[in-house]
Amino acid sequence: MSLMLNEIGQQPEVIERTIRRESKKIISFAEKLQRNRPRLIVLVARGSSDNAAIFGRYLLEMTTGIPVSMAAPAIHTLYKTRMELKDALVIGISQSGEGVDINMVLESSRRCGAMTLAITNEAGSTMAKITDETFLIHAGRERSVAATKTYTGQLLIFYMLARALGNKPNEPEIDRLPELTAEALTLQPQIEEMVERYAFMENCVVVGRGLNYANAFEFAIKLMETCYVVAERFSGADFLHGPIAIVDKAFPVFIFAPPGPTLRGMKDLVVQLNQMGAETVVISSESGLLKKARRAIRMPRTIPEILSPIPYIVPAQLFAALLSVTKGLSPDQPRALRKVTRTV
Amino acid sequence: MSLMLNEIGQQPEVIERTIRRESKKIISFAEKLQRNRPRLIVLVARGSSDNAAIFGRYLLEMTTGIPVSMAAPAIHTLYKTRMELKDALVIGISQSGEGVDINMVLESSRRCGAMTLAITNEAGSTMAKITDETFLIHAGRERSVAATKTYTGQLLIFYMLARALGNKPNEPEIDRLPELTAEALTLQPQIEEMVERYAFMENCVVVGRGLNYANAFEFAIKLMETCYVVAERFSGADFLHGPIAIVDKAFPVFIFAPPGPTLRGMKDLVVQLNQMGAETVVISSESGLLKKARRAIRMPRTIPEILSPIPYIVPAQLFAALLSVTKGLSPDQPRALRKVTRTV
Repeated sequence: MSLMLNEIGQQPEVIERTIRRESKKIISFAEKLQRNRPRLIVLVARGSSDNAAIFGRYLLEMTTGIPVSMAAPAIHTLYKTRMELKDALVIGISQSGEGVDINMVLESSRRCGAMTLAITNEAGSTMAKITDETFLIHAGRERSVAATKTYTGQLLIFYMLARALGNKPNEPEIDRLPELTAEALTLQPQIEEMVERYAFMENCVVVGRGLNYANAFEFAIKLMETCYVVAERFSGADFLHGPIAIVDKAFPVFIFAPPGPTLRGMKDLVVQLNQMGAETVVISSESGLLKKARRAIRMPRTIPEILSPIPYIVPAQLFAALLSVTKGLSPDQPRALRKVTRTV
Repeated sequence: MSLMLNEIGQQPEVIERTIRRESKKIISFAEKLQRNRPRLIVLVARGSSDNAAIFGRYLLEMTTGIPVSMAAPAIHTLYKTRMELKDALVIGISQSGEGVDINMVLESSRRCGAMTLAITNEAGSTMAKITDETFLIHAGRERSVAATKTYTGQLLIFYMLARALGNKPNEPEIDRLPELTAEALTLQPQIEEMVERYAFMENCVVVGRGLNYANAFEFAIKLMETCYVVAERFSGADFLHGPIAIVDKAFPVFIFAPPGPTLRGMKDLVVQLNQMGAETVVISSESGLLKKARRAIRMPRTIPEILSPIPYIVPAQLFAALLSVTKGLSPDQPRALRKVTRTV
């Protein structure tokens, strides 16, 4: 079994452990923030951590109403801009905590007046040292180059932070996440059969929207890293504004379509893509939509949309890890990559 | 000649006309803003206009120090979030001014306390009516589905806004842009010969960084819309964090590499890609780098980096328009697209 597949399987315990160990610290940090509420949240990350940040952006805006900006690191690292960041909370997200440019942005933001926060898997990392506060993912060491358990761990930290910062009466029941994630893992035998069909897939598009937009990026990066598939990723809306022209007959389009406010648009998109002859592959629990899809990945149960991103990425992670093997590659040894990438 | 090629050629006059007609209005708007300086700028757009917004994001942060956020429209349209937008300036960018979701975000932002601004080519559009102020691109009607002159027109408006809002002594000399753009158009015969080689290209990656990151998105969307090429786009740094694994021998990678702070990283990337056997195609004026590239698009003169995005997109626009024809397609009739896309 690949390291990647092994680590995908560890996710229910990582989530359970991280909730148990980090809750108190996050709640007390949020109490401090309530007295000095940030007017802006800035997220800074690269790679899979940046995909997790996309989720954080949606979740934090929805639950707190505070505007969130995804940082452009070059503004700090290459253009040396002095930003107006008083009353801003700047959050770095990095599995290793050693992303050079991310740490430069955190230091520069602090000098510009921001409070800084680290979300990382490494308590002793540079990022943990240079920030005002650190929230840890308790994933154990991640040995696979392709991040899986730290991605969902980062998503989880955003839930905990949003719960602590938010003012909504209906808090997402994150205690259900270990079980929902374990259920999603039961899809493995079905996906193992399914990937055979895609052994020679060279291109595809992944579509997600809203809370699952991040998952479109994350599934695509896994397909690029471990299967060398040229995988585009779009929101359902952006896809229609130009890129849909690339879709020819039999072109594969993977679609995250959990029940919720994004479902109607995804249904319309599936119908349109079917008319164009595309191969639509839908991840959903919604029978009506799954029947319309050319290929279906049926989630084992209906999940409230707010909780869907973690369980919904699981079949996609399995798909990439298993497709890599069936293509004759190794998901643990992607060409041209190492675990820690250093960029400025 | 295609409509698209015709409109690419109109860009010097569109830029000259827009500077002449809009300068006063933008300066007086900025004077109003100086008394009530925004603490946050939010940009909201789709398609090519969203690519222009990526440029606006870098330019406005660099010249004003005010944080900029690229809006996630679904937060307003699907999740109906009440955002904290007091002291925010929300800017909608749309060629037609009729993007339904973009206009919903502008209306929702106004209700949340923001000042709103439209950047559009249509004075009588819905967007112009619902916003506090409108800046017009004077491009004349854009008949090609693939936006070209309105994209560079939008970039230009961001320069004018940045100049009016900024506090830097060294203002970019935007009056040089019509001439620099006209010079870039002289590359047409060279690119007409060059595209023959790419007649059967199915995939590629486009890389840009900093001020030219937007151009990577814009070149890629032109290749998708008019040539049906599956064109990925990344910043030089993000590319290294996973996606570079898709690069096999002979894989085409187009690289915007103007002289300036991003050049060193682009040089390193070209060397690495050459070692991997990729087909590097570099757009630059820098002889040392152009010699390293497998294929070179040499800009007719060295341009200050701050002014480079408009002249540098011109050879890319020409490339897409001419490649489309040599592939036996029509750049004016992309499948599955119309000029105004309506999404919510």
